Amino acid sequence: MKTTNVAAIIGGGVIGGGWAARFLLMGWDVRVFDPDPDAPRKIGEVLDNARRSLPGLSDVALPAEGQLSFHRELAEAVSGAAWIQESVPERLDIKHKVYQSLQALCDESAVIGSSTSGFKPSELQENAQRPGQIIVTHPFNPVYLLPLVELVPSPENPAAHVDRAKGILTSIGMYPLQVRAEIDAHIADRFLEAVWREALWLIKDGVATTEEIDDAIRYGFGLRWAQMGLFETYRIAGGEAGMRHFIEQFGPCLSWPWTKLMDVPELTDDLIDQIAGQSDAQSGHLTIRELERARDNNLVTMMRGLKAQDWGAGRLLNAQDQRIGSLAGTLDDIADLAQPITTVARAVPLDWTDYNGHMNEARYLQAFGDATDKLMALIGCDADYIASGDSYFTAETHIRHIDEVHAGAKIKVTTQVLLGEGKKLHLFHAMWEGDRLLATGEHMLIHVSLATRKASVPDARVAAPLAKLADAHAQLPMPEGAGAAVGKR
Amino acid sequence: MKTTNVAAIIGGGVIGGGWAARFLLMGWDVRVFDPDPDAPRKIGEVLDNARRSLPGLSDVALPAEGQLSFHRELAEAVSGAAWIQESVPERLDIKHKVYQSLQALCDESAVIGSSTSGFKPSELQENAQRPGQIIVTHPFNPVYLLPLVELVPSPENPAAHVDRAKGILTSIGMYPLQVRAEIDAHIADRFLEAVWREALWLIKDGVATTEEIDDAIRYGFGLRWAQMGLFETYRIAGGEAGMRHFIEQFGPCLSWPWTKLMDVPELTDDLIDQIAGQSDAQSGHLTIRELERARDNNLVTMMRGLKAQDWGAGRLLNAQDQRIGSLAGTLDDIADLAQPITTVARAVPLDWTDYNGHMNEARYLQAFGDATDKLMALIGCDADYIASGDSYFTAETHIRHIDEVHAGAKIKVTTQVLLGEGKKLHLFHAMWEGDRLLATGEHMLIHVSLATRKASVPDARVAAPLAKLADAHAQLPMPEGAGAAVGKR
Repeated sequence: MKTTNVAAIIGGGVIGGGWAARFLLMGWDVRVFDPDPDAPRKIGEVLDNARRSLPGLSDVALPAEGQLSFHRELAEAVSGAAWIQESVPERLDIKHKVYQSLQALCDESAVIGSSTSGFKPSELQENAQRPGQIIVTHPFNPVYLLPLVELVPSPENPAAHVDRAKGILTSIGMYPLQVRAEIDAHIADRFLEAVWREALWLIKDGVATTEEIDDAIRYGFGLRWAQMGLFETYRIAGGEAGMRHFIEQFGPCLSWPWTKLMDVPELTDDLIDQIAGQSDAQSGHLTIRELERARDNNLVTMMRGLKAQDWGAGRLLNAQDQRIGSLAGTLDDIADLAQPITTVARAVPLDWTDYNGHMNEARYLQAFGDATDKLMALIGCDADYIASGDSYFTAETHIRHIDEVHAGAKIKVTTQVLLGEGKKLHLFHAMWEGDRLLATGEHMLIHVSLATRKASVPDARVAAPLAKLADAHAQLPMPEGAGAAVGKR
Repeated sequence: MKTTNVAAIIGGGVIGGGWAARFLLMGWDVRVFDPDPDAPRKIGEVLDNARRSLPGLSDVALPAEGQLSFHRELAEAVSGAAWIQESVPERLDIKHKVYQSLQALCDESAVIGSSTSGFKPSELQENAQRPGQIIVTHPFNPVYLLPLVELVPSPENPAAHVDRAKGILTSIGMYPLQVRAEIDAHIADRFLEAVWREALWLIKDGVATTEEIDDAIRYGFGLRWAQMGLFETYRIAGGEAGMRHFIEQFGPCLSWPWTKLMDVPELTDDLIDQIAGQSDAQSGHLTIRELERARDNNLVTMMRGLKAQDWGAGRLLNAQDQRIGSLAGTLDDIADLAQPITTVARAVPLDWTDYNGHMNEARYLQAFGDATDKLMALIGCDADYIASGDSYFTAETHIRHIDEVHAGAKIKVTTQVLLGEGKKLHLFHAMWEGDRLLATGEHMLIHVSLATRKASVPDARVAAPLAKLADAHAQLPMPEGAGAAVGKR
């Protein structure tokens, strides 16, 4: 029988709470030591956030959640713990005191990880009973979602101890990035600090506000960095001529006044060779064209994801769609009501396709769902109507996949109302690329009260336009394939 | 009749090509002036990338593509152009010469935008015939996808001209960020330069390689910046105590050795007030809790998007799923073959739900599609089999939506084989939360040769295990709802 692993969390703020949530949701028992009487509430809030977001990141079921407990006695918290995470305030004297108490009580084999963003491991280890047990494991907020942990050992840490720390961090879904040399603020926070300093200058000099600075990041290079970081992005900018070419082009900026922050390394041939060589080792297995396509796939995927959240660059895309929008807004805009209505006209996006560029099964239904939404809006079941407490829910769907379609293809969906009466709305969608039929979707929707979730009759605001459209469509022939069950023609 | 707008592209490298692609795909005619005989090829390559990625970003049909032409005569290129984009090398003498030639030929009302990453507009305007016509419009690669343009006017630019430039950039889906004061390298490139300098130090000092630096960015703060930038992220870190609290905590680092870049503004009370006030104006309409949830929704959406691309943080998630994976790998792992098989067990992710937290229609089919993939893998139709040239395609699907389900809920799908014979594979999936039935999915799949895209009989590697499973499932009763057509029970 599997014994549950135990993690002790020393200091239960936002960072400690994030560690607690990640261990817990990955099946570890978690014991929290924090004298703050508010710690259970604070950690509870972080856990609420983690429970709604982390398990669904995974496409498999996570282990059963571990047990969470709060302790007043340090001995209770750390006894038998395989991992002890220290997230107390950033003062060396406080941290030293914590380690002294800890090491008198904990297993010698336990990893003591510190969330410190600034201190070097050798500073943390000063005067410790077992210096080799203490290591920097610096996470990023929100700890339950972001995978990065900077793992910084000192020469005091035995290799086997470092490996064990890596193994545990990997097992809870994190990415331990082992830092090669001790340095104040490790790696990532050095970048954050440089940008923070530059940002303060820009605000102080009246060049930009906080919002303008955020927009300058999240509508531009922030999206590049989220998927490739700095050097792989610049490798693409160097093109087939390579990283050396890029540095030789960009290098001169180092002597230009492009930042207020002016201590600059000399760009020697050796340093250029070192960077170009490292970049080849990192990304040289992909051509620039392949990197460009990977970058574009990633950007489209992330930007369309943000679009669904109506946030950042995605909100800009929604506004642009509104400006372009070319389909009929109301039934009155439609010249001939006695024809199927065009309810979707778009290109197949990269994030709807598999690695072969074919549209995925589920995205056919997404396009048909969009067509249904558009049809509903045309008959008055729009955002206002839904906000007033009524809507249609899809009860049943029948899709026939007739032909394949690729990323970038222009598709449209035409929609015929088979029945629009009482509580029922029976629709038949056909998806086309030009005059090539790709798929059909037959759907039964039921009008519901959003309060009771029960079937109900639509209000006249919807019932009247629907009746008008359904009457016009009643003259159309029954489409081929309507009314069929799977496997029966 | 609508007249097509004309954009002239002066300099056809990666940046000029990106501008050309964006204008063209937004319906503008584009005339390229570049003496390089390779310009058509280079711009053609950028256009190929843009055509596969940009149109699908939009959920509506873009205007019909404009006409692209290449010109040896500057007069031909700029005559009648409403927008002229200069992307020639970063040398002021070259840029001045280009503007002199341009302004002798172009409309006085045309916007002359410069892609310069470093020069101030007043530098560009020196000795120009009409200084007020020239403005900095600095884009970010890939120009056809990233919305940011830094729009930097000088006092010479009339307000109406700046507004017209903004209007045109917005109409082609970009976000013109007007910079309040001229400054070398505008805003974003100052951050890029500061980070670049810090990165060179880290490499030179042997602290990290290019790949480790990229990982430190893209597995951590890069994901935060892609959606919120710097200050909104830190606002959350400040918690309910607010931005002032955060700066007071983080401020002291300014005097610490956290970067090699040491010119630091003094953190006066005035500056702190200014930053806190700007942050309130930017994000004060949302509570910290709301910001946290928006951040988590965005992170989950982007990370799951990257997961589908198997890239960056998404590749880490796939590796973690492999480590956790708990479902049967082969038929031999299944104790009782005469029962429906569990083919999906997972939590409903945030990106599968609408703003009310309900799972979206199309995601039911995504889960059923995953169930089908798992069933196929169990009978030997796995990645190797598919790579050898055979697979199953879904021909038909019937879904019944029986009950609602929310983000975070643990769902599973059980699968019954109704028929597995010859070219046909007839499946019936049921989706459950605990013992609550959420939906059923009935699917007819056809075995195909991937070379001919025609129906074919499966190889014995698949046919034999499928027959074994189908025989075992033949003893199960026909599930309720199987064989039904939409609207018929």
